[in-house]
Amino acid sequence: MAPAWAYARRPLRRYAILAPGQFAENAKTAHGVIRYSNDETVAIIDPSCAGQTVREVVPYLDSSAPVVTSVAEALQRKPTSLLIGTAPKGGKLPPDWRAEILAATGAGLEIVSGLHDMLGDDPEFAAAARQHNVTIWDVRKPPDVPLFSGSAYDVKAPVLLAVGNDCAVGKMTVMLELARAARELGSNAEFVPTGQTGIMIAGWGIAVDRVISDFATGASEQLVLQAAARNPDYILVEGQGAINHPAYAPVTLALLFGCAPDALLLVADVRRSSMETYGTPMLSYARLVDIHEELCATVKPAGVVGIALNTFGLEQTAAAEEIARARAETSLPADDVVRNGAARLWTAIAPKLVKRHPLSAKAVA
Amino acid sequence: MAPAWAYARRPLRRYAILAPGQFAENAKTAHGVIRYSNDETVAIIDPSCAGQTVREVVPYLDSSAPVVTSVAEALQRKPTSLLIGTAPKGGKLPPDWRAEILAATGAGLEIVSGLHDMLGDDPEFAAAARQHNVTIWDVRKPPDVPLFSGSAYDVKAPVLLAVGNDCAVGKMTVMLELARAARELGSNAEFVPTGQTGIMIAGWGIAVDRVISDFATGASEQLVLQAAARNPDYILVEGQGAINHPAYAPVTLALLFGCAPDALLLVADVRRSSMETYGTPMLSYARLVDIHEELCATVKPAGVVGIALNTFGLEQTAAAEEIARARAETSLPADDVVRNGAARLWTAIAPKLVKRHPLSAKAVA
Repeated sequence: MAPAWAYARRPLRRYAILAPGQFAENAKTAHGVIRYSNDETVAIIDPSCAGQTVREVVPYLDSSAPVVTSVAEALQRKPTSLLIGTAPKGGKLPPDWRAEILAATGAGLEIVSGLHDMLGDDPEFAAAARQHNVTIWDVRKPPDVPLFSGSAYDVKAPVLLAVGNDCAVGKMTVMLELARAARELGSNAEFVPTGQTGIMIAGWGIAVDRVISDFATGASEQLVLQAAARNPDYILVEGQGAINHPAYAPVTLALLFGCAPDALLLVADVRRSSMETYGTPMLSYARLVDIHEELCATVKPAGVVGIALNTFGLEQTAAAEEIARARAETSLPADDVVRNGAARLWTAIAPKLVKRHPLSAKAVA
Repeated sequence: MAPAWAYARRPLRRYAILAPGQFAENAKTAHGVIRYSNDETVAIIDPSCAGQTVREVVPYLDSSAPVVTSVAEALQRKPTSLLIGTAPKGGKLPPDWRAEILAATGAGLEIVSGLHDMLGDDPEFAAAARQHNVTIWDVRKPPDVPLFSGSAYDVKAPVLLAVGNDCAVGKMTVMLELARAARELGSNAEFVPTGQTGIMIAGWGIAVDRVISDFATGASEQLVLQAAARNPDYILVEGQGAINHPAYAPVTLALLFGCAPDALLLVADVRRSSMETYGTPMLSYARLVDIHEELCATVKPAGVVGIALNTFGLEQTAAAEEIARARAETSLPADDVVRNGAARLWTAIAPKLVKRHPLSAKAVA
């Protein structure tokens, strides 16, 4: 039997997304789900911009779902699930959020939460869920997984893992865009979620950063095995953290060894000059390529096959210059897949992926 | 207030160690505690070798404590604590172990356990402990710790971290021997335990491998800060795993970044030719030095200052050849501190430690 966190075919969700006061500016999870999930978002609950549509509040989101004031109002749009779309400031759930979550539970909605605190462990929510026969899906809840076994070395599809020059540079977005481009070009590319937003988008996965350290490589391996069981042409793993991040590098290394990738994609935000909040200097693209390849070489060799740049906020000319600079520094294909579409970068790297994995079931022309 | 896992002055324990059928061959934790702890071991419970002394069963342990058949018999030696000195095969506690643990609880002994399963979470043990006003110390239980903050960068004593060519090569033993040698030579060296046996020996610490991945660097940092609060001349951190271990490397990296070491000591078992159980090839000493230094250089530079070889089982000539080979390959001081004593290696590396930490309070001649 598949474990609880694993992929399963199920009816698509219809999400009401709870993001009081924060939908416009501070709801990356909500924005990611609206943009990339196959599940439909039918309403946003945020009194601060109620009366508008999603598109009117966040222009780059292609959705006409209404923003409403309450769960009660959202119910008119027949949601199946309430998604907690942002984290409350200070970490504690404000009383009005509690009331809205309980209203959703009372109306029979599934509760989907990426909060650090597990809603299913909250006595009031747990009791309400039992009473109304409702599921609480705490997507960060770490499952029991076995230790790393080495089975990931035998996966039959090429595995591409995103690594980055920092946290929160767009690794998930890049891998989702590449997976979509691959599918549009006729390949079956499986996106593997390793963090909360990716899990909500794909409907399965493990938040590797919440797993006990000894089991983080095992969790990474299980994710790849789960994806491989669906016989994809390619496996595209969302990365986490950065190998030189003082706090989160262990999670990056868990994915680097546990997923046993055949190839790496370097994702870099061109505007960062030092590591988020710690002041650790940024490494050059060439140094980042070297350090990842040297580490992989000690266990299972994997080469960096391309660079996906996040040039958000730059003028077109400046973005093109950054892309050209990355190509010149590394002799690797480089592009911004959000700005320029992902088809070109995917077409450049896919043959390298296959070449690095001789067992690949499907040759790429 | 100091956290629960932190160092505190307390009366020394008198241990009865439970190791049924396994004291002679399969009780590394028990052997480590007998050899290195300031707490006294007053009896071993192992019917398979009862009637002998510790020294008669394990010749390298300098203890005349008796091996007895039961907790009841051990009570004559007035223990304060029952230490579970080994892991039961298959992971489950056999019924006769349960009975012995309950007998100890009933006699008012503290229970100290390094098992994966938390005895304090076992309803029967928890109830017995409450009834008899007894403490259960599950040494692997992960505490709540903050995220990594960078405070470790400001520690006033030089920090030396052990890294290894594999798991279970003797990193803890080497750091305990060096700390003892340093003290004998007049310096105040603080051993920092990062795994279960080290915690039992030192009476405080965190099993970093049991901490949630996102917090593993934070736990490592807290350990160093806790040691620094006692104003030592040197801080010697027990390492974990190996940077090229397919399963456990993330724990190694958590210590490498979270402890913010000024210097590293490479500990290597000369007999290993491939990574324990995974077949990953061993790296040369020179490669191990490079890969650790390159990673540290991305965050806080730290150089390898020496090599401690584990030459257990080799003839004296072969051991000397291995030590000479390590010196020749790396131009670093190298020795086997168990075979040859730790004073020589400590004397060779201590000045390098101070040199790498300009704030060090105490200069070494």
